[in-house]
Amino acid sequence: MSVLMKAKEAAERVYEEIAAKAENWKRKGVLPRIATILVEGDPASAYYAQAKRKIAGKLGVEFDLHSFRAGVSQEEILGLIKRLNGDTSVHGIMLELPLPKHLSAGEIEKAISPEKDVDGVTPSNKLATVTGERGLYPATPQACIKLLKHYGYTLEGKNVTLVGRGQTVGLPLFHLLQRENATVTVCHSRTPDLASHLALAEIAFVAVGRPGTVTPDMVHEGLAIVDAGINETEGGRIVGDVSADVAAEAKVQAISPVPGGVGTLTTAILYENLLKAIEIQFGEADKG
Amino acid sequence: MSVLMKAKEAAERVYEEIAAKAENWKRKGVLPRIATILVEGDPASAYYAQAKRKIAGKLGVEFDLHSFRAGVSQEEILGLIKRLNGDTSVHGIMLELPLPKHLSAGEIEKAISPEKDVDGVTPSNKLATVTGERGLYPATPQACIKLLKHYGYTLEGKNVTLVGRGQTVGLPLFHLLQRENATVTVCHSRTPDLASHLALAEIAFVAVGRPGTVTPDMVHEGLAIVDAGINETEGGRIVGDVSADVAAEAKVQAISPVPGGVGTLTTAILYENLLKAIEIQFGEADKG
Repeated sequence: MSVLMKAKEAAERVYEEIAAKAENWKRKGVLPRIATILVEGDPASAYYAQAKRKIAGKLGVEFDLHSFRAGVSQEEILGLIKRLNGDTSVHGIMLELPLPKHLSAGEIEKAISPEKDVDGVTPSNKLATVTGERGLYPATPQACIKLLKHYGYTLEGKNVTLVGRGQTVGLPLFHLLQRENATVTVCHSRTPDLASHLALAEIAFVAVGRPGTVTPDMVHEGLAIVDAGINETEGGRIVGDVSADVAAEAKVQAISPVPGGVGTLTTAILYENLLKAIEIQFGEADKG
Repeated sequence: MSVLMKAKEAAERVYEEIAAKAENWKRKGVLPRIATILVEGDPASAYYAQAKRKIAGKLGVEFDLHSFRAGVSQEEILGLIKRLNGDTSVHGIMLELPLPKHLSAGEIEKAISPEKDVDGVTPSNKLATVTGERGLYPATPQACIKLLKHYGYTLEGKNVTLVGRGQTVGLPLFHLLQRENATVTVCHSRTPDLASHLALAEIAFVAVGRPGTVTPDMVHEGLAIVDAGINETEGGRIVGDVSADVAAEAKVQAISPVPGGVGTLTTAILYENLLKAIEIQFGEADKG
């Protein structure tokens, strides 16, 4: 039987810590507040934003949803971000993706104040992820590592195969894995023989955004796989990048499910970043 | 016999292109000019600065050496950089390392205008190296790839072992290798069995800064090695990171010598970056 690395317990542990920290800040008169920017038109984005709102309620965190009609101009959004950057009662700013095609996510993300950038999308936080300097790192890569560690795995000195090299998950995850002292092989769409690299891996992270990227014939019983893929099938189901057969046929030592794996923990890490953002905004000494 | 991948010919080809471009800019009234900042105290730095000056003369590029006494303050250097940033007759700014311990190279490098940053050390150019956006990329990683290609090697789809993950060479080289579509394994001091990774590699880059990092027992006859190490022995000789036995015993298909390899081409790339900097400063359309 493969161990199914569900995120629920790890996420709950993170939420407990966040709720306690939030409570501490409130005693000092700071009410943790996150602002989420949503442009209408993508049902999944709207669903995720509502899910985050529900969690904020449980954590005692204020959640402001700024919802725009699909035809909103770039300037309007930039205007809101400028206002939120300057509003000291707002500690985190998040942009729900994808955006309609007439908007530039890159330009909008750059406008967010790095100290409020809970999703680690601004240039200075992207660079901090590379160099290891203090900053707010992207949530999904952090969730990948935290989920694995929750199940007792260590990364120091391990052979890790990372499948995917995107700017959002793969590349930042590569850099976080350097700080864990793993020996990482980065595979991608131009890698001729993915199986040969997975054969040598003790741990694999898959973050490609394509279902069926890893199939049962590619894996071995000593492998632990973290699946960071979130793909919607034509039938509307959510599936990962690793074929469902891999878990069903118990081909690996451990695997994270989709849904209920990395995505679940990612939401928790976003709020963890919010509390870290408050620490940064109020100074290191004042740790909530 | 291992092919010895000397850089002289590749460097000369780069210099010919640079000289032609410099000539074109002069006809338009732009005299390419680089400013090098040197703090006295490190004999090797002084030697390298003089070597660059000699090459500038051959290329028809103006070379200003700004030499400070060892006790110079951080503010004095930052003042010079501010002046050079604003001086439209200066197109490139370079800081010779290492600096005396009372100075912060990181803070000084951040002050350089990204458009004049011919060594790719500013935050925005470091990030451009990661994301692949337009910018001035660090010279040594570019030299590593150019040298290999000069000897007919391609990187697309190849298994590459990169030994070293420093901010100056290893990490930026990793990112450039992504754009070449190589499958890269990054090894480092915490990798338990470097030999096992070199055994699977078709191409290896070594950038650790420690002599004898790769020894004859670790390599195979199908391997091409680019050695980016520059180490001074106690006897004052310059040696690479790969043990001299590897080439002497003809254990690999090809290897770059030290000196006369990556370092030689790096100087050429610095001037290539200077010409690219001029293109950036005068606008893409005006390509010299």
